[in-house]
Amino acid sequence: MATHKLLLLPGDGIGPEVMAEVQRLIDWLNAQGIAKFETEQGLVGGAAYDAHKVSISEGDMAKATAADAIIFGAVGGPKWDAVPYEVRPEAGLLRLRKDLGLFANLRPAVCYPALADASSLKREAVEGLDIMIVRELTGGVYFGEPKTITDLGNGQKRAVDTQVYDTYEIERIGRVAFDLARKRRNKVTSMEKRNVMKSGVLWNEVMTAVHAREYKDVTLEHQLADSGGMNLVKAPKQFDVIVTDNLFGDMLSDIAAMLTGSLGMLPSASLGEVDAKTKKRRSLFEPVHGSAPDIAGKGLANPIAMISSFGMALRYSFDMGELADKVDAAIAAVLASGLRTADIKSEGATAASTTQMGEAILKEL
Amino acid sequence: MATHKLLLLPGDGIGPEVMAEVQRLIDWLNAQGIAKFETEQGLVGGAAYDAHKVSISEGDMAKATAADAIIFGAVGGPKWDAVPYEVRPEAGLLRLRKDLGLFANLRPAVCYPALADASSLKREAVEGLDIMIVRELTGGVYFGEPKTITDLGNGQKRAVDTQVYDTYEIERIGRVAFDLARKRRNKVTSMEKRNVMKSGVLWNEVMTAVHAREYKDVTLEHQLADSGGMNLVKAPKQFDVIVTDNLFGDMLSDIAAMLTGSLGMLPSASLGEVDAKTKKRRSLFEPVHGSAPDIAGKGLANPIAMISSFGMALRYSFDMGELADKVDAAIAAVLASGLRTADIKSEGATAASTTQMGEAILKEL
Ligand SMILES: CC(C)[C@H](C(=O)O)[C@@H](O)C(=O)O
Ligand SMILES: CC(C)[C@H](C(=O)O)[C@@H](O)C(=O)O
Repeated sequence: MATHKLLLLPGDGIGPEVMAEVQRLIDWLNAQGIAKFETEQGLVGGAAYDAHKVSISEGDMAKATAADAIIFGAVGGPKWDAVPYEVRPEAGLLRLRKDLGLFANLRPAVCYPALADASSLKREAVEGLDIMIVRELTGGVYFGEPKTITDLGNGQKRAVDTQVYDTYEIERIGRVAFDLARKRRNKVTSMEKRNVMKSGVLWNEVMTAVHAREYKDVTLEHQLADSGGMNLVKAPKQFDVIVTDNLFGDMLSDIAAMLTGSLGMLPSASLGEVDAKTKKRRSLFEPVHGSAPDIAGKGLANPIAMISSFGMALRYSFDMGELADKVDAAIAAVLASGLRTADIKSEGATAASTTQMGEAILKEL
Repeated sequence: MATHKLLLLPGDGIGPEVMAEVQRLIDWLNAQGIAKFETEQGLVGGAAYDAHKVSISEGDMAKATAADAIIFGAVGGPKWDAVPYEVRPEAGLLRLRKDLGLFANLRPAVCYPALADASSLKREAVEGLDIMIVRELTGGVYFGEPKTITDLGNGQKRAVDTQVYDTYEIERIGRVAFDLARKRRNKVTSMEKRNVMKSGVLWNEVMTAVHAREYKDVTLEHQLADSGGMNLVKAPKQFDVIVTDNLFGDMLSDIAAMLTGSLGMLPSASLGEVDAKTKKRRSLFEPVHGSAPDIAGKGLANPIAMISSFGMALRYSFDMGELADKVDAAIAAVLASGLRTADIKSEGATAASTTQMGEAILKEL
């Protein structure tokens, strides 16, 4: 059996608590002989800043580069609101994405039937919702240069951010979206603002070309990002796969996550290109939720998004799709049994701590 | 009685139909001696392209500059999807905003009680919703340079858009937001992505400074634009005034509009700076909805957003707040009476065409 090297980066806030439940699952898989994972731990975000005054150390970057997959918790919190911009907690995550070339961010937004009522949307609008947001993650305004604040004198400053996209960046994220759609409901909706942004014009043009050249069997639809956002709120079930740039993806995937009423449940995968020789791709898996400093350390956090992110690692990095299905089924079964962490509590449900939820999922497995 | 000069720019799609209902209202106000409006008409968007191969002619720009207020319908449609970028329908609207210095875009998102059930959100989440989005409208990625597509050879192109904000631009839009909050529930939420964008860092810094210097009596809160979007979907009633940049404002105001279930009802105002001498400000008023080419020319369009936009003109450009209140009350009364255009139809309601709705509001006045 192949040994897989995992780097665990719990980060800040509830990160360590939810990561502990993944560690429990890994230990069990190893003990049962179901898989062979070697894990290392590292520091990222505020935790790295407190230890080394950086958002991630060179040592941990080296571990990240060597790992077969990175399991990432969450970063940030008011404690680090005043640290210099270059070493703010988020910088560690952004560096991992950029330096490891993790250009494809997959964010499924799924409404668990047991939780449909937790959505602020009407049950009929979200019940059965299952969409996949494919967000470009290493380009756009996140990394474009210049990115500066200049003092103009007279009390005036000028801030500049630059949105840049090259053809190949749009092509490769398009292919990820079309490939996923083929395994789903065969429809891709591309979102941009071509009526205002040149990057939107190019985005639209390249998606159209990739589709015409390689994916005629998939339905491609274009929506402006603003009306796309509207449609997401109005009638989300019209979508299958949504592909969009880094910044629109940030907004739209958060909104999609909120629609489901299951924010604490949603995983994400960030993938690099497949290496022609090794057939491997770098990858990082993280929950969609943040570090939730307000509830950190209290055993209140929902570990499902984190465990489910590990499930995505099994599926996308280790070709263990069946095991991933079992993890998903265990989560669904535990929810159906009525167990609930505080964020998803409802009348008649059984309250569970972070640990109790993690243990219940393991037992179900 | 002062004479007010209005430029009517109906534009494309349903624009002319809904504008006709404003014209009807203006004629009546003139005939009754309640006000004295002089109106001119101009072409914008696809209509201008069809006539002159531009998105707005120099002649109409001159009229716009000379007018006391511009009443704008909507632009765009599939008919003009393939026209050159520089003369696409939206360019006319963008030029009006930029050349007239209309930096402050006010977008109220109000949930009419009679329509709460039309929202995809649960009634309790949106009933009574009344928020004001203040969007910066002449800066940011909409107008920053460079804004280019370059051919790199080898089938590769590079698209660049530039987000630029200067201190004074953030200060003046901040003041608009704080001033509005003072007349409302005294709370401003500023949204940006300071964890990723330098313009977000400056935006946050300047808002904080303006608040500390001039508006200590107002509550100021900062949210990241992605979690702000989430909160808008989860619990919109937590907001009073939201102030944000051009692109985030585009997305967030559309989402807020959709929450209300009343997209066909929502007006907007775009205002310039107050002239020190004349005390006047340039202004443009337009519905939040688009040109809806699919229903154009069928008498199906809802004229309420357009009429309500004219109401905002009365309030913000002509100091006729009382008359504006009467227009709002007439709209509410007609809705309460059960009259509905197709977009807001519901069981037991009386169906109305565009014209019937316009006439009913006039009768109510
Ligand atoms: C933490 C932050 C830098 C990040 C982003 O903006 O990408 C987060 O919001 C996300 O969506 O993963
Ligand atoms: C038509 C388009 C250019 C415009 C914008 O993006 O600002 C519209 O979406 C709006 O919100 O007024």
